[in-house]
Amino acid sequence: MSTISDNRADRTSLLRWISDEYHDLNGTHHDVLKASPSPLEFSRLVHISRPVLMKNCEAPDALSRWSDSYLIDKMGDAGISVAVTPNGRADAVTVDANGQQYFAEPYVQTMSMSNFLATLSSGKSRSRDEIYYLQSQNGNMYRSSYFDLHAENEPSEFEALREDVPSEISWCSEALDRPPDAVNLWIGDGASVTSIHSDPYENIYTVVRGAKHFTLLPPTAGWCLKERVYPHATYMRSPGTNALILKPSSSEVPGVRWSSVKDPTVPGSLPPEAHPIHITVNAGETLYLPAGWWHFVRQSEITIALNYWYDMESRGTAWVWLNMLRGLEPPPPGNDEDYVAEQSDKHFELYQ
Amino acid sequence: MSTISDNRADRTSLLRWISDEYHDLNGTHHDVLKASPSPLEFSRLVHISRPVLMKNCEAPDALSRWSDSYLIDKMGDAGISVAVTPNGRADAVTVDANGQQYFAEPYVQTMSMSNFLATLSSGKSRSRDEIYYLQSQNGNMYRSSYFDLHAENEPSEFEALREDVPSEISWCSEALDRPPDAVNLWIGDGASVTSIHSDPYENIYTVVRGAKHFTLLPPTAGWCLKERVYPHATYMRSPGTNALILKPSSSEVPGVRWSSVKDPTVPGSLPPEAHPIHITVNAGETLYLPAGWWHFVRQSEITIALNYWYDMESRGTAWVWLNMLRGLEPPPPGNDEDYVAEQSDKHFELYQ
Ligand SMILES: O=C(O)CCC(=O)C(=O)O
Ligand SMILES: O=C(O)CCC(=O)C(=O)O
Repeated sequence: MSTISDNRADRTSLLRWISDEYHDLNGTHHDVLKASPSPLEFSRLVHISRPVLMKNCEAPDALSRWSDSYLIDKMGDAGISVAVTPNGRADAVTVDANGQQYFAEPYVQTMSMSNFLATLSSGKSRSRDEIYYLQSQNGNMYRSSYFDLHAENEPSEFEALREDVPSEISWCSEALDRPPDAVNLWIGDGASVTSIHSDPYENIYTVVRGAKHFTLLPPTAGWCLKERVYPHATYMRSPGTNALILKPSSSEVPGVRWSSVKDPTVPGSLPPEAHPIHITVNAGETLYLPAGWWHFVRQSEITIALNYWYDMESRGTAWVWLNMLRGLEPPPPGNDEDYVAEQSDKHFELYQ
Repeated sequence: MSTISDNRADRTSLLRWISDEYHDLNGTHHDVLKASPSPLEFSRLVHISRPVLMKNCEAPDALSRWSDSYLIDKMGDAGISVAVTPNGRADAVTVDANGQQYFAEPYVQTMSMSNFLATLSSGKSRSRDEIYYLQSQNGNMYRSSYFDLHAENEPSEFEALREDVPSEISWCSEALDRPPDAVNLWIGDGASVTSIHSDPYENIYTVVRGAKHFTLLPPTAGWCLKERVYPHATYMRSPGTNALILKPSSSEVPGVRWSSVKDPTVPGSLPPEAHPIHITVNAGETLYLPAGWWHFVRQSEITIALNYWYDMESRGTAWVWLNMLRGLEPPPPGNDEDYVAEQSDKHFELYQ
């Protein structure tokens, strides 16, 4: 069976054409709303599928209440799952001592809120060789089963904080005609970064304290992010020294497809055809981050955020579109040095 | 700007992949609503962009009032523009006596409503060598300037019928946040057919009397319709005999890109990968025909319809998507006998 899989140049040229067209039409514009949208207004925004910053949304109670002492008091001794890495990059590509690259998942440590916040505020997290980030992302506040009347209500590690966090965003649930798939709490500081990736979710992201700095690229710019396939690894604690060590997973665990661009804010990391959008979300503000948009996320101070992931519409065109954009270029192995050299030459010689 | 590959086989194979994926996900399903949607419900439907048949919508007054005698009485001697062709195919590909193919526009004859309806009901239209179809499509009821407070209100040929026809569909205008670009009246019989084409409009199509038979294909199936570029021509009346003659336009008039499939309901006219959807819209029913969908339209008896064209959303992805689907395959000339559609044996594969 012959395939056109071998014709990389054709496919790259098509992806460039799509991303040029998309950029010509949409530029780097993003809407800023002065209040939360109505369900109908939000439905129109979802159809356009561009990021929107919303100021003065109805704020969750968390916003006014969540001082350190309140959080510590409410949570008491309850254990919470915190991601620990040596470099502040949980769920990201990491190089081991031998220069081998892995997609590394963090070590997950259970600790009390009081210990966790003490570690962040002492600046320990930054000076030490261990960085802590509360980013469990499994619907740590609410998961979809919460909205299923027939399912057992799984307890949340943050049960005690639920009263401050609405289980859904009414204008979003109404617009999309479904409850969220997951509601997550994020707490971290300037030592942590979320590497660039995209999710098949409509994302409503509210900052409770501090500020989040998003670097965004549309789904059409995926080819600029040079995805590779990396072997999987997880940080563990060495039984002897308790130090973090990176443990490669068994060869049965499939490789992970991830962008090889470590930090898209570093000049030169993206080709000139990529036009990133930089949006800072301050406390009390909410970002609509549409499904399939690439995002790289930082914070400079201690930042608390809540986000609502809603399943994207699978009917119609959107799903086919995202699959096509990601599937046209093959993700080569991340550790193939010959390939990396060849590809970057080809990329800039052929099409500039 | 980069260009899409010149390799036709690759592009055809990509188009097939897209249309297979789209079909796997969406099938040939269409929703049927029992009442008109709310603006929010319709906004969601526009996002999904699949045809929807609506029964029991709020009916325009036209529905109960428009008997022949009412129409004749209201319109009096006012002249209306009627398309006249020898074959009932206005705006369609036609072969002249020498076997040359043209995209032919109809002769436009001005006549009274009473004359027009008499011609249709006498069956004359069918037995004669002249077929009449009221299909002026230029916003013959209302055009966009009607909604522009600063524009002069151009009179409509059907001014006298406006009181029976709402100038917009409230749930659609609210969902899309704009008034219609054009509102059209269609009156024809079984001798007339509308050849398969697509429009960049969201289309709300209501049947007032009779029934319309739509054959629909999604934008992803465009490659099955084998578009060609045809020289332009217009039907005129011969000054001597008054007979209809096809007059080729000057070579300055650009060729028209049109499907070479004459009737997609004839078995074998479409490749097996095309999965047409057949929807009959009866009097009192309304079809939502999403932007970019291909449609072939017939009626068996005298049928009166009203349709509302709304500009599609140009921001975001939809416009790029439609352009890409139509732009991947260059349309060859329609009269080039040497041209044999190159069928792709290649099987497109995504890298996932
Ligand atoms: O806040 C972060 O660090 C990352 C957020 C994120 O990736 C998401 O909400 O999908
Ligand atoms: O009713 C017809 O004959 C054709 C309708 C059509 O093409 C349209 O509404 O776009």
